[in-house]
Amino acid sequence: MAHGGDAVDLGRRYADVRALTEALAEPLSPEDQMVQSMPDVSPTKWHRGHTSWFFETFLLQPFLKGYETFHPSFAYIFNSYYETVGARHPRPERGLISRPGGAEVARYRRHVDRAMGALLDTALEADTAALVELGVNHEQQHQELILMDIKHVLSRNPLRPAYHCTAPRPAGRSMAPGWLEHPGGPVEVGHAGPGFAFDNESPRHVVHLTPFALADRLVTCGDWLEFMADGGYSRHELWLSDGWALCQQQGWQAPLYWTTTEGRADQWQIFTLGGEQPLDPAEPVCHVSYYEADAFAHWTGARLPSESEWETLAPSGPVEGHLLDPAALHPAPGGSGHQLFGDVWEWTQSAYSPYPGFRTAPGAVGEYNGKFMVNQYVLRGGSCATPIGHVRSTYRNFFPASAQWAFSGLRLARDL
Amino acid sequence: MAHGGDAVDLGRRYADVRALTEALAEPLSPEDQMVQSMPDVSPTKWHRGHTSWFFETFLLQPFLKGYETFHPSFAYIFNSYYETVGARHPRPERGLISRPGGAEVARYRRHVDRAMGALLDTALEADTAALVELGVNHEQQHQELILMDIKHVLSRNPLRPAYHCTAPRPAGRSMAPGWLEHPGGPVEVGHAGPGFAFDNESPRHVVHLTPFALADRLVTCGDWLEFMADGGYSRHELWLSDGWALCQQQGWQAPLYWTTTEGRADQWQIFTLGGEQPLDPAEPVCHVSYYEADAFAHWTGARLPSESEWETLAPSGPVEGHLLDPAALHPAPGGSGHQLFGDVWEWTQSAYSPYPGFRTAPGAVGEYNGKFMVNQYVLRGGSCATPIGHVRSTYRNFFPASAQWAFSGLRLARDL
Amino acid sequence: MAHGGDAVDLGRRYADVRALTEALAEPLSPEDQMVQSMPDVSPTKWHRGHTSWFFETFLLQPFLKGYETFHPSFAYIFNSYYETVGARHPRPERGLISRPGGAEVARYRRHVDRAMGALLDTALEADTAALVELGVNHEQQHQELILMDIKHVLSRNPLRPAYHCTAPRPAGRSMAPGWLEHPGGPVEVGHAGPGFAFDNESPRHVVHLTPFALADRLVTCGDWLEFMADGGYSRHELWLSDGWALCQQQGWQAPLYWTTTEGRADQWQIFTLGGEQPLDPAEPVCHVSYYEADAFAHWTGARLPSESEWETLAPSGPVEGHLLDPAALHPAPGGSGHQLFGDVWEWTQSAYSPYPGFRTAPGAVGEYNGKFMVNQYVLRGGSCATPIGHVRSTYRNFFPASAQWAFSGLRLARDL
Amino acid sequence: MAHGGDAVDLGRRYADVRALTEALAEPLSPEDQMVQSMPDVSPTKWHRGHTSWFFETFLLQPFLKGYETFHPSFAYIFNSYYETVGARHPRPERGLISRPGGAEVARYRRHVDRAMGALLDTALEADTAALVELGVNHEQQHQELILMDIKHVLSRNPLRPAYHCTAPRPAGRSMAPGWLEHPGGPVEVGHAGPGFAFDNESPRHVVHLTPFALADRLVTCGDWLEFMADGGYSRHELWLSDGWALCQQQGWQAPLYWTTTEGRADQWQIFTLGGEQPLDPAEPVCHVSYYEADAFAHWTGARLPSESEWETLAPSGPVEGHLLDPAALHPAPGGSGHQLFGDVWEWTQSAYSPYPGFRTAPGAVGEYNGKFMVNQYVLRGGSCATPIGHVRSTYRNFFPASAQWAFSGLRLARDL
Repeated sequence: MAHGGDAVDLGRRYADVRALTEALAEPLSPEDQMVQSMPDVSPTKWHRGHTSWFFETFLLQPFLKGYETFHPSFAYIFNSYYETVGARHPRPERGLISRPGGAEVARYRRHVDRAMGALLDTALEADTAALVELGVNHEQQHQELILMDIKHVLSRNPLRPAYHCTAPRPAGRSMAPGWLEHPGGPVEVGHAGPGFAFDNESPRHVVHLTPFALADRLVTCGDWLEFMADGGYSRHELWLSDGWALCQQQGWQAPLYWTTTEGRADQWQIFTLGGEQPLDPAEPVCHVSYYEADAFAHWTGARLPSESEWETLAPSGPVEGHLLDPAALHPAPGGSGHQLFGDVWEWTQSAYSPYPGFRTAPGAVGEYNGKFMVNQYVLRGGSCATPIGHVRSTYRNFFPASAQWAFSGLRLARDL
Repeated sequence: MAHGGDAVDLGRRYADVRALTEALAEPLSPEDQMVQSMPDVSPTKWHRGHTSWFFETFLLQPFLKGYETFHPSFAYIFNSYYETVGARHPRPERGLISRPGGAEVARYRRHVDRAMGALLDTALEADTAALVELGVNHEQQHQELILMDIKHVLSRNPLRPAYHCTAPRPAGRSMAPGWLEHPGGPVEVGHAGPGFAFDNESPRHVVHLTPFALADRLVTCGDWLEFMADGGYSRHELWLSDGWALCQQQGWQAPLYWTTTEGRADQWQIFTLGGEQPLDPAEPVCHVSYYEADAFAHWTGARLPSESEWETLAPSGPVEGHLLDPAALHPAPGGSGHQLFGDVWEWTQSAYSPYPGFRTAPGAVGEYNGKFMVNQYVLRGGSCATPIGHVRSTYRNFFPASAQWAFSGLRLARDL
Repeated sequence: MAHGGDAVDLGRRYADVRALTEALAEPLSPEDQMVQSMPDVSPTKWHRGHTSWFFETFLLQPFLKGYETFHPSFAYIFNSYYETVGARHPRPERGLISRPGGAEVARYRRHVDRAMGALLDTALEADTAALVELGVNHEQQHQELILMDIKHVLSRNPLRPAYHCTAPRPAGRSMAPGWLEHPGGPVEVGHAGPGFAFDNESPRHVVHLTPFALADRLVTCGDWLEFMADGGYSRHELWLSDGWALCQQQGWQAPLYWTTTEGRADQWQIFTLGGEQPLDPAEPVCHVSYYEADAFAHWTGARLPSESEWETLAPSGPVEGHLLDPAALHPAPGGSGHQLFGDVWEWTQSAYSPYPGFRTAPGAVGEYNGKFMVNQYVLRGGSCATPIGHVRSTYRNFFPASAQWAFSGLRLARDL
Repeated sequence: MAHGGDAVDLGRRYADVRALTEALAEPLSPEDQMVQSMPDVSPTKWHRGHTSWFFETFLLQPFLKGYETFHPSFAYIFNSYYETVGARHPRPERGLISRPGGAEVARYRRHVDRAMGALLDTALEADTAALVELGVNHEQQHQELILMDIKHVLSRNPLRPAYHCTAPRPAGRSMAPGWLEHPGGPVEVGHAGPGFAFDNESPRHVVHLTPFALADRLVTCGDWLEFMADGGYSRHELWLSDGWALCQQQGWQAPLYWTTTEGRADQWQIFTLGGEQPLDPAEPVCHVSYYEADAFAHWTGARLPSESEWETLAPSGPVEGHLLDPAALHPAPGGSGHQLFGDVWEWTQSAYSPYPGFRTAPGAVGEYNGKFMVNQYVLRGGSCATPIGHVRSTYRNFFPASAQWAFSGLRLARDL
């Protein structure tokens, strides 16, 4: 991956990102930070440790002379999936580990930060600086995971606690729908040039598009209520076969985190990081799976965009949108813009596959993206839980078609 | 889907295809025809009934005046997955049904054939003729399934019985590998024009290729032995993450149907439809999953082709190759040709997705292909179990990445 | 186990029992005889083979000079659970074996019968004769299993076929309930003296009973309808904790094989070996689990009997009752008798445990009973599927508390 | 259940028991107290809340005028299995609840204690005092569960932390084995007379024993090493059928918590509440399932005792033995006594069944014992984790045959 920025800048970004992780954990008790509410979810404490382990393993041990590992067992406990690096604690058992406690993980983070400070004070080779850049971006990914995961954790507690206090949300107004058109033909997609990007965004290459249009706004909760009222969750003909099987098996009736009080089927609530809230029809729908997104699109007669279509119409300059703001951790109704960035990740119809000419990096860092390129679908644009500065027009997020716990919504597309 | 051929031709093709199904079932006892060895497998008897039900449901009931259904419960028993048509017997329980017995299913087939004879003697509307064409192609698909499925069934029997007697196979010789090159750029793929094709092969459209090469032969069992000898099944770094998890969980050590005698780890046998046979290193490797195919390609430093690459280099004229021949139901070593058609289906790296502009047909027939376009990968080219006349250069077969029981192999590709 | 009867008698009993097995299989097609509808069920064909394997393994191979095994793989295929004898085919996969076919199993049976004829013509040692006696009783147990199992198999077929034609059943009349009282104190239970008995019926020993009474009739379907009408399947307080969990998980609403037509909740049908029949309230309830039997007893304020209580009040002389009669394979309403023998096996509250002083026999035959003495409950008295001559007052049948597919019913008991 | 002791005594016992619970939790961090390492295990925090909920629900709400519930949701969170009392949080999800935190649970306990103080200052009806007595005994049961459960929790942590520091254990010496004989005949067992006992210990009744002997000491780790050396975990003929299946499925090689270092198969360690320790052959074997205990007994040619045999030879007076002592939470080698009480619970061969004449109490308290009387086996005598004053000669503990995480060992018996 390419490296951007000089050493001072890198040091400051390192410090900022590390501080944000701790700030995100701050409203949570040590007990909150231990819970694993399903195998896909990791405890907050684990995210805090794992992101530190990344720096310890890929930067400090190879490049900082005299570095002493904080604890010999942490490599086992905090490795996520790097087979190359050695054995690791089984993922579904992360919630069983009460020790190290939250306080000890904080000490671990400070230990790593002090050593990274020393390393960043030296003159880094370009390759080493690129690894720091990767570590910073890696930790930003885990910041969004911390928010996704703790939301799921708290939603499973009978007390339905809030993660933080939020100001009352302004009642929104969704814009009238319109379409952004494109005449098709050959276009270039993917990352090239300076600035950091993950390996899966390269190489830049040509794809040939058929004429198409993207909706100029996200699908809203109000749209979704119409889908539900029209039998969206009970009409098999709208669904992919795998999706319909899962919908029936799990008894889906609405997006994840939507609840209704018995006897008041029309009064929907949403569980948010600010606790239970009344549903606002103007806000973008969130926490829907690929299957639900595809069924909704089918119902409208439109379809999901491909990732190339999305990228072609997304602004390629500086990213503006509702990204991670600790005071507003919930998607907001659109104003006059198109919300291509922020609020919710947008499902595309594109399977997560390597770009033509893609090669994985050698060694453990090469396990970063390539080995997940099967059975997943690409999402674009970032969400209200994505750290500022992390996302860009070529950025490819990915989840299995069944996943609901990401901040995932959708935008329609159609053929011209 | 488009319709080709006139009425006489259609009647003869109907009769030929129906006769071939019965010929394929002929070597099997009524008991053999009942077994369901895993949920994906259907009993031979069920395939014979289901293909008849297709004609009864979509042709005879709507279009043949005065048609009387053979048995009121068969619609329930022999519906595969058509939600629109009504309730159906659960797929994993097909092996529990001893009645109707094989003899009654034969009577059912004759009943349907007589009625179809009457219908085909009338002047058919183009739409109706297209449905007959679809039914014929549908039954051909089930002919290959009959062979795939009974191979799995017999392989689970401790007696390891043969499906049929075969002549000793000639010891083959694989050609030295070479590459078929292509300069890239825009190409057209997909079906257009006259002649039958499934809906998923359309519309024809432009894709932009990067310069690439396809191997001029299939990967052989000899190649696979080298992969195994080099630790192919124990080196995580060669595998996709999902594939590695499955490989470990199921203890894969070799392709499906390869066995070895205790204490003779170097003497591999293959279970074939002609019973257990010594392995011939020159024959194409078969019954490998997408995960295995991808790991093998990774090991060689090459990759799997995309479906567009494959289609671009495949001959677009008449199909020649080793397709279904009841006397030779096993992939054969290549001679001087490239084996793009026949012997084994070739895994591509392409997820099974709709082509730009794809629309499902309305009604039950629309459930044919579109609803499976998720979590599957495309295979191309047909196999030694594919009926002659069934496959073409635009044909898209598809299976989940974990499937091994299809006649699936691979050909390498690389970037230029 | 003790041996009774002389050689001529043994030879005739051997022949009679072997003939009955084939007569029970006769109404079934080869395809019917292959089905395994749940892991606990074995195919008819397997029972026919396994009972022959028992004679081959424990009598012919050790004691008949020059005996030649019918097929080298049958020991693997037809061993049920004798670890001592060697590896065996996995029980849940018995339904996958289409070969040997039914006709070959018939040849296997004739081969064993001819050899057993030769062996029985020689002068047998007492030990050897005892093994023949065991084999005869073993085959009788499998005769009941054949009927239990095929009933389950046919019940899973959407066509709901009958095993045999039966005459219309006479509408029954259940007797007014009364009680058979016993003053308690020390009594002797268990087998001693001449005549065959299984090892688990010995040694005879003293137990001390508290004063009690047994109902003088079986619980009927009419009684059970009252239980259901009073919320029997929805009131947790009537159930054992494990039973309530299973009842909810499986959605039990009535005994196994009871069905009702949609919209006619009061019109119950029973699936019998003669096909679907209207429910007769006077007939004994059958196919209930221990959990259901216990909940029913709890509901009445009574309890299940202990096995010692049952044995103390059962007639110790010749057994009279409605046992296996191929023309009447369904429990019948009681007349003037108490139905202690026949019609349905009666659940007792007694866990299946060794009697004081019980020892297993050495070698493979010792695996017969002892190793199952955990997590099962004792049933007494035989059923309408138990061969005549097989059951006696000391006979201990046993099943897990969850089992419903045996011909199992109940009789109430209470403290005095 | 019977009630013993006057009001002052009851108040003091209440206070002592409540204080011991908190003392047992004291060495654990709030995070430790949250973990549920398998569905059978409950978090320490949950035990602390649940025992308080018991007093709140069954004493304070019905009997203390003006009592105000601490939190409206705690009835849902801290109900264990009382169906009569209302809905409850699913047991396997107890580890997901980070709130209420440990500090809030402490406040809940103090709230309940203050109110119970007020209630105990009034003149209690005998029935109410009996409920307090039951609550006290109930909390003692959970004290042992706290120790069992936290031991399992800590054993799953890769850091293998100790619960508390212990002094080095004295190397023990097991006594030479001898036998305590009994001539058999009628004996009385069960509880009668004054003093608290659980309902499952009554009524007192006669059983008839066959002459037998009990070993005069517990089976030791040294004995178990011999069993292992003689193939105890690999010889099917020693095992019950269900036990052998479980042993193979779970790969049992030694008792739970025994570990060995790679390459040093003869150097066994035991994980204890004081951390990892070298194995002492003289100490009683602990954490074995019923299946393992039965296989061991089978191997020696002896058997497990019945619960009546055990009770007949146990001292009926004051209980003396190694019961819960926070400084010694591990079974100790025997000295000159027989260790009938304390150190380890002793598996008996007796299924957990109602005594003749047993009746459950009406209402929610009646759910205490009776509904578990199926599929479990009785253990006798208490362990090193059983609170002093809790156990007696008639006391019946019970677990499924598969359970290993209780402090369970065994003593041999044989027929005379």
